[in-house]
Amino acid sequence: MMNSDHAYMARALELARKGLYSTHPNPRVGCVIVRDGRIVGEGWHARAGEPHAEVHALRQAGEQARGATAYVTLEPCSHHGRTPPCADALINAGVARVVAAMQDPNPQVGGNGLLRLMHAGIAVHSGVLEAEARSLNAGFIKRMEHGLPLVRVKLAMSLDGRTAMANGESQWITGPQARSAVQRLRARSSVVLTGADTVLADGARLTLRESELGLDTEQTFMALSRQPLRVLVDGRLRVPLSAPFFQAGAAMVATCAAASARFRYLDDGHELLAVPGSNGHVDLRKLLLELAERGANEVLVEAGPRLAGAFTRQNLVDEYQLFVAPKFLGSSARPLLDLPLGRMAEAPALKIVEMRAVGDDWRIVAVPQPVE
Amino acid sequence: MMNSDHAYMARALELARKGLYSTHPNPRVGCVIVRDGRIVGEGWHARAGEPHAEVHALRQAGEQARGATAYVTLEPCSHHGRTPPCADALINAGVARVVAAMQDPNPQVGGNGLLRLMHAGIAVHSGVLEAEARSLNAGFIKRMEHGLPLVRVKLAMSLDGRTAMANGESQWITGPQARSAVQRLRARSSVVLTGADTVLADGARLTLRESELGLDTEQTFMALSRQPLRVLVDGRLRVPLSAPFFQAGAAMVATCAAASARFRYLDDGHELLAVPGSNGHVDLRKLLLELAERGANEVLVEAGPRLAGAFTRQNLVDEYQLFVAPKFLGSSARPLLDLPLGRMAEAPALKIVEMRAVGDDWRIVAVPQPVE
Repeated sequence: MMNSDHAYMARALELARKGLYSTHPNPRVGCVIVRDGRIVGEGWHARAGEPHAEVHALRQAGEQARGATAYVTLEPCSHHGRTPPCADALINAGVARVVAAMQDPNPQVGGNGLLRLMHAGIAVHSGVLEAEARSLNAGFIKRMEHGLPLVRVKLAMSLDGRTAMANGESQWITGPQARSAVQRLRARSSVVLTGADTVLADGARLTLRESELGLDTEQTFMALSRQPLRVLVDGRLRVPLSAPFFQAGAAMVATCAAASARFRYLDDGHELLAVPGSNGHVDLRKLLLELAERGANEVLVEAGPRLAGAFTRQNLVDEYQLFVAPKFLGSSARPLLDLPLGRMAEAPALKIVEMRAVGDDWRIVAVPQPVE
Repeated sequence: MMNSDHAYMARALELARKGLYSTHPNPRVGCVIVRDGRIVGEGWHARAGEPHAEVHALRQAGEQARGATAYVTLEPCSHHGRTPPCADALINAGVARVVAAMQDPNPQVGGNGLLRLMHAGIAVHSGVLEAEARSLNAGFIKRMEHGLPLVRVKLAMSLDGRTAMANGESQWITGPQARSAVQRLRARSSVVLTGADTVLADGARLTLRESELGLDTEQTFMALSRQPLRVLVDGRLRVPLSAPFFQAGAAMVATCAAASARFRYLDDGHELLAVPGSNGHVDLRKLLLELAERGANEVLVEAGPRLAGAFTRQNLVDEYQLFVAPKFLGSSARPLLDLPLGRMAEAPALKIVEMRAVGDDWRIVAVPQPVE
């Protein structure tokens, strides 16, 4: 492996990140083509149905691709999907060497693309900046490997771990920069998921707001052109269709109530998803399986203590994003999570992977620790 | 002002910090003497009653002090205390210029030392790295300016803002590195203060443990040679003299109960401080005034939700040090602070000044925001 491989792959990852807000249900992929120590082609995947990163990069490289090295952040595909296989495109363009950050995580096709390249006499290497590449597409990878989306729970709390006053007063506990960060979390997600409590109490819409995204023109355009599916978990169908949530656009309602209500929602442009459940509570794991089936890579849960607590109790959370406002709401205020535990040994262990200032607030990113 | 002034003052502050654990009730002070662009003398104040920083530095400089510049992190004293005035020592040594980081915060003597130097024909400058110098002695400055010590509240909590399970289970929610950081907070304080709940429930001693300080040999020695006064707030004298807290060494008990109990404590080597109070609760502000009167610069409060909540409710806290363990203790667990608030407008506003990893835990430093 050449030393410069890292630098070119880092550039390919930078390109891949341009698709952060738009590639759903596909992974974010970038490609760099290098000939005689010079980048002759760059590309990234923008949207499902549009050309893959390799195709863009090969087009830009033209004849210079012959004998070149192609850096791709994900193993080139070998199957006919909505576009022809990229492995074939690389072979036909005459590249001499292909470096992939990681293999395709789909167990059905993983390794096939690289094998196809090898059989065509192309030098192949995989595993350069693999951790970074896996992190960029953690949701896609989880869906491919486990049939479940990555679940990210966003919570806004005070320094003493409270989300709202006892009387429900809660809006704006964090500032504009934290809200902007939440907008970007929504924009990158396949699904933004909430519960009836939140929609009823706060009039939550969970939409993207152009002015709050805080992105440049190109990225704003990409984000707004592919908005996340808004999913409301409403086991007993308590939220009326007149709620701001439904007025803000087409949404999906997941319920274990009678499916006979379907047409009422359909008439207003919404989808009703019947999910098994009990006591009026939707089976969250089954819901996630269904969302993954529909291509959801990253699900952002923006809910109150009850629903967020239920995801926690059922070990369905991959990542917590806690936005911490610099105040104390006090001991009568509402808890972060509805999570009644009796003994310390039951306390879920986490790893805090980041704490960072976001305006006057701070963001804490924490991931569950596997039980030892 | 010369550009190098900052560099020499930074060195003087570095020296001053060597007294972090030992100068109580005095401030931490460092001094550097520079002649022809070369440091010819360095000194720092180690302990009350021992020579001041200037004296150490002048001794080291000897004859080279003549015509030199002296950098001191605090205005040289002009009064006879336990040692002769440093202003005179600088004059007698023939220094040509004195640069101070800040004036003496004691309103009775502030500026006198610099004036005395000026009148002796010495060039004088004040205000170099003043913010850093003030920060190092924030407790001493508060005591001089307001007759109150700096109050630092240390709390250990889970990510969801809980300190213990409902059944009281709480020990070791943070790891060894966080405990070591707490040891250093104790060591730098004039007073470590706790409440009867904590001493009764946890058997807390609040002592320094050499093995946990995590300091080098010199600093460990300095810390252990001047241990903080341990103060127990025990309004109703509930804690028996057989408690580990009392067995661990001489302590002070602050109470509003009958002062007739004094001799019982005295017999065991402890001091009983009678403080006004009501309903069995010691008047905390009066207690702090009394502690300041006795020279306390920094008070570390290590208490449960009730006492820490009382300090918070009475706006007596200057700084919170929150050690956050990466776990959720859940919604039945005990709150961070006993602080019942009804409306968001009553929520104390803070500014988070630092979040930093400490082993597997994180430390959040937050200071109250002035009410606007």
